[in-house]
Amino acid sequence: MAKAVAGVEIERLIQLLARLPGLGPRSARRAALFLIKKREPLMAPLAAALQTALDTITVCRTCGNVDSQNPCTVCTDPRRDPSVLVVVADVADLWALERAGAINARYHILGGTLSPLDGVGPDDLAIDTLVGRASAPEVTEVILALNATVDGQTTAHYITELLADADVKVTRLAHGVPVGGELDYLDDGTLAAAIRQRTTF
Amino acid sequence: MAKAVAGVEIERLIQLLARLPGLGPRSARRAALFLIKKREPLMAPLAAALQTALDTITVCRTCGNVDSQNPCTVCTDPRRDPSVLVVVADVADLWALERAGAINARYHILGGTLSPLDGVGPDDLAIDTLVGRASAPEVTEVILALNATVDGQTTAHYITELLADADVKVTRLAHGVPVGGELDYLDDGTLAAAIRQRTTF
Repeated sequence: MAKAVAGVEIERLIQLLARLPGLGPRSARRAALFLIKKREPLMAPLAAALQTALDTITVCRTCGNVDSQNPCTVCTDPRRDPSVLVVVADVADLWALERAGAINARYHILGGTLSPLDGVGPDDLAIDTLVGRASAPEVTEVILALNATVDGQTTAHYITELLADADVKVTRLAHGVPVGGELDYLDDGTLAAAIRQRTTF
Repeated sequence: MAKAVAGVEIERLIQLLARLPGLGPRSARRAALFLIKKREPLMAPLAAALQTALDTITVCRTCGNVDSQNPCTVCTDPRRDPSVLVVVADVADLWALERAGAINARYHILGGTLSPLDGVGPDDLAIDTLVGRASAPEVTEVILALNATVDGQTTAHYITELLADADVKVTRLAHGVPVGGELDYLDDGTLAAAIRQRTTF
């Protein structure tokens, strides 16, 4: 019924918006109506920004980052430490580390983690290119910045074994109490890791 | 920092997506990344749908609905009862009534409700055109389908007084227990109204 009322153009817009993560059918309708009302200040710029993104954004052939230049801004940045390679599962993880200003190095995006249950094997990830990059003479350390989940840690172990013969130090992120976290709310595994990996005050 | 990494095109897309209702800065980043990954199946169609919407969607000069034709599909639908005019505050309310299949009549969209605190007066709403439409000979009933809020009811009273001299019956939505609602959780006003407006079983 709503189809006949709102017109096929609006229905199509709502259906596409509803496929975005974070938006359901109801909020997609609200978003579509909001866009129609904010025609010039929002709908037109968003249409243009999507078209520009479509025209310009590619996947970096070196690290797998998304950017409008290839190799990407990170890979071509001369101020970054060329001796450290940070391995992440996804572009979102790269963005998170960069937002935190955690490290000024280059990245390697796997495109996921090993997951036998989901049928994701080594050939589905950018692992062979990682081995190639890690054996470059300037690289001395590979940091495995993978999720502390079963899949993430399985992937970390797999890569560590692959790089055993390469002349690089393989490290992983520290486990411990999150900054601002309360001990009372933490799980046993995190608390045990925080004690095990305690540092001198 | 994220700007230098993700590129201005992606940052621009994230900023615009973050302005949609229901999406914040964090979910806008997720949505942007999702769009970049689903380039052909989602980003391209969404860009096209937004452009089509920009090119075709206008506000109906009769009722204020948004549609790709003017007068809109609802106003030109010959199967709708021409004697009833349903007054709503917003297009979203029209959509809600149509989704419910509540009534097969025509609509009049005010574009908001009277709100002295927010500086919204009668001249800011499509009230004069409503008076014009309500005095058409074929119109016998005006249903005020406005929110059961202070602003909604103020607007309903204002319109009722304006239409006192017109030859139309002015009605409003029933108050009562929502279908599926539990008495225990309802507010006093709703319960009192449900008792007051009780119907014969």
